Amino acid sequence: MDYAKESLKLHYELKGKLEITPRAKVDSKEALSLAYTPGVAEPCLVIQKDVEKSYELTRRWNTVAVVTDGTAVLGLGDIGPEAGMPVMEGKCVLFKAFGDVDAIPLCVRTKDVEEIVKTVSLLAGSFGGVNLEDISAPRCFEIEKRLKEVCDIPIFHDDQHGTAVVTLAGLINALKLTGKKIEEVKIVTSGAGAAGIAIIKLLLSMGAKHVIMTDREGAIYKGRENLNPIKMEMAEITNLSMEKGSLLDVIKNADVFIGVSAPGTLNKDMVKSMAEKPIIFACANPIPEIFPEDAKEAGAAVVSTGRSDFPNQINNVLCFPGIFRGALDVRAKDINDEMKVAAAYAIAELVSDQELNAEYILPAAFDERVKDAVAKAVAEAAKKSGVARV
Amino acid sequence: MDYAKESLKLHYELKGKLEITPRAKVDSKEALSLAYTPGVAEPCLVIQKDVEKSYELTRRWNTVAVVTDGTAVLGLGDIGPEAGMPVMEGKCVLFKAFGDVDAIPLCVRTKDVEEIVKTVSLLAGSFGGVNLEDISAPRCFEIEKRLKEVCDIPIFHDDQHGTAVVTLAGLINALKLTGKKIEEVKIVTSGAGAAGIAIIKLLLSMGAKHVIMTDREGAIYKGRENLNPIKMEMAEITNLSMEKGSLLDVIKNADVFIGVSAPGTLNKDMVKSMAEKPIIFACANPIPEIFPEDAKEAGAAVVSTGRSDFPNQINNVLCFPGIFRGALDVRAKDINDEMKVAAAYAIAELVSDQELNAEYILPAAFDERVKDAVAKAVAEAAKKSGVARV
Repeated sequence: MDYAKESLKLHYELKGKLEITPRAKVDSKEALSLAYTPGVAEPCLVIQKDVEKSYELTRRWNTVAVVTDGTAVLGLGDIGPEAGMPVMEGKCVLFKAFGDVDAIPLCVRTKDVEEIVKTVSLLAGSFGGVNLEDISAPRCFEIEKRLKEVCDIPIFHDDQHGTAVVTLAGLINALKLTGKKIEEVKIVTSGAGAAGIAIIKLLLSMGAKHVIMTDREGAIYKGRENLNPIKMEMAEITNLSMEKGSLLDVIKNADVFIGVSAPGTLNKDMVKSMAEKPIIFACANPIPEIFPEDAKEAGAAVVSTGRSDFPNQINNVLCFPGIFRGALDVRAKDINDEMKVAAAYAIAELVSDQELNAEYILPAAFDERVKDAVAKAVAEAAKKSGVARV
Repeated sequence: MDYAKESLKLHYELKGKLEITPRAKVDSKEALSLAYTPGVAEPCLVIQKDVEKSYELTRRWNTVAVVTDGTAVLGLGDIGPEAGMPVMEGKCVLFKAFGDVDAIPLCVRTKDVEEIVKTVSLLAGSFGGVNLEDISAPRCFEIEKRLKEVCDIPIFHDDQHGTAVVTLAGLINALKLTGKKIEEVKIVTSGAGAAGIAIIKLLLSMGAKHVIMTDREGAIYKGRENLNPIKMEMAEITNLSMEKGSLLDVIKNADVFIGVSAPGTLNKDMVKSMAEKPIIFACANPIPEIFPEDAKEAGAAVVSTGRSDFPNQINNVLCFPGIFRGALDVRAKDINDEMKVAAAYAIAELVSDQELNAEYILPAAFDERVKDAVAKAVAEAAKKSGVARV
């Protein structure tokens, strides 16, 4: 199918993928007097006395803003805020279909970090959470960090953390399948974008000890030249054995490769140089760092990609609807690492030991158990880590 | 019925009066590939080339933001942004039910004019229009003015202009009923809030020549002491005959009284001192400036209030859904005076000459003809006045 052509046709036909639907009737004088004036004054006054009541008397409890500045939309780059809206609407459709979350798409006409932070924070009383989307690195890190500081609702950049959670879910099962332990394996990553950084941070918080991040110039280590502030930060917490050299050098004896970089970054010889039963996550989209067939021929035990036409797809839809569902259910103030790790394990555990094999390390995107399992685990983790408000 | 109690109960039951509903299916791999990735890249690219296409490929064409800072909610005053949300949600329900408009409630956590203007203007690419709601005077004037300058979508403060349009619609028919002409009548108004100022401006743009605005200190005229900037501006364009004195003085021989002020402002003796067949708009809510019964006993030919339990209710629902419907239909850049006047005439004309009487100068809120009549007139006026984009 010509997806581009058919999708454009569908978008012209639909004239928008979302719609606002009333839950209150206003079809009689009486109904109007209850849903609107004069009756509506009463819920207003109740919220005035206790702002938390806005979670009970308005839709805030179930509402998430999906916010973009249009600077990193899909693989298209900086296409502008309005041009990002078809993706934002699509994301909102997924939020509802996969998580029962009411999501509102908002595009912001600025690339200025301060302006984006100010805009979102001033609107925070309208929502129960904010999903940042398709904002370019490194601005996305700063925007998320600042918003987490100033907002009393969860802020989640799905391109970072959604991808990280699903990748980690896959890794949990790949390690189980190959009989390896996260504390012991050597992990080499490629790509310093939003997802790459988030994956490494989550790996570390899950107990990984031996992680080497690479960019086009090779391994990142403390003191290397040409490191931007983010890479400098990563150099402090990764590659503690200070391995140097290109990817070709450091991939040797690695147990795991995680790529969120560019097509062709990994080749067969590199895979052959890895430790026994190597695990490959080749998530560049649509062309992976190495195609599954090639990786397997070179001895890969498990291969995962971002594509739905290969097994083991890293698909964020496995994660963000359930994560927000869980966060909203307990009125969480934040989506923290504990909640992300809990989501990763919840996703991984949906694949039973009997089912687990090299072609099935992750549940399918349409597996109906996913939302509830993730939501439950995330809500529990929120309670345990002290960020739940109910 | 105890509206307060019943409304609170309803709000707890509903848990929000709005919900976001998908218009696109994502129930199969194929559907997902069209509504979301990879297909969605194509509509994004089309909008990147021509931002106007956002009106065809996303819901923007039908979406309005309902924005408040919670400073003048109903008659409750400054109750805070979150506490205003039940009203905003109600307004959004009315937008959909009465105008087929998708409206999104947003509350802003600031009272600073600059911050509100910045926030709304940065989001303007997400919407086809903005309805400002329950923002206190005089900030509402400045916010609206500034937003009209910087935004390429219509900005409409319903508390000002919606009330003005419906009042003028009523006045058109009241004048017809009493055989008077707007150019000739003496009109005295009471109240210098958002609605009062907007009514006067619209009166003038419809041809009224003899308008006197009063506040608690009496008639406003050029050079009077204790005038704030807004009243100074009004003193320049009203009361050209420089009448001085209290409301008791200047109401003498007036043909029309329009009150958007406080209960009890007008008494029977004042009505008796007016010209023949006086027309009374007593819109203070819920207690009017004078009760219809008293006004009629004192000789009023027509009385209108803001209440649904008396005849001739000034109800904004007659106006804002159709105005936005019309503005969105022609992708208007603005909602200008021509469009407001057209809306007033369209509402007035729904009452036929045969039907017109002292108890029926305005169509009922639930009159199904209203939306289309107003939308059509507004769209035509937008085209004639050069603000329509399609």
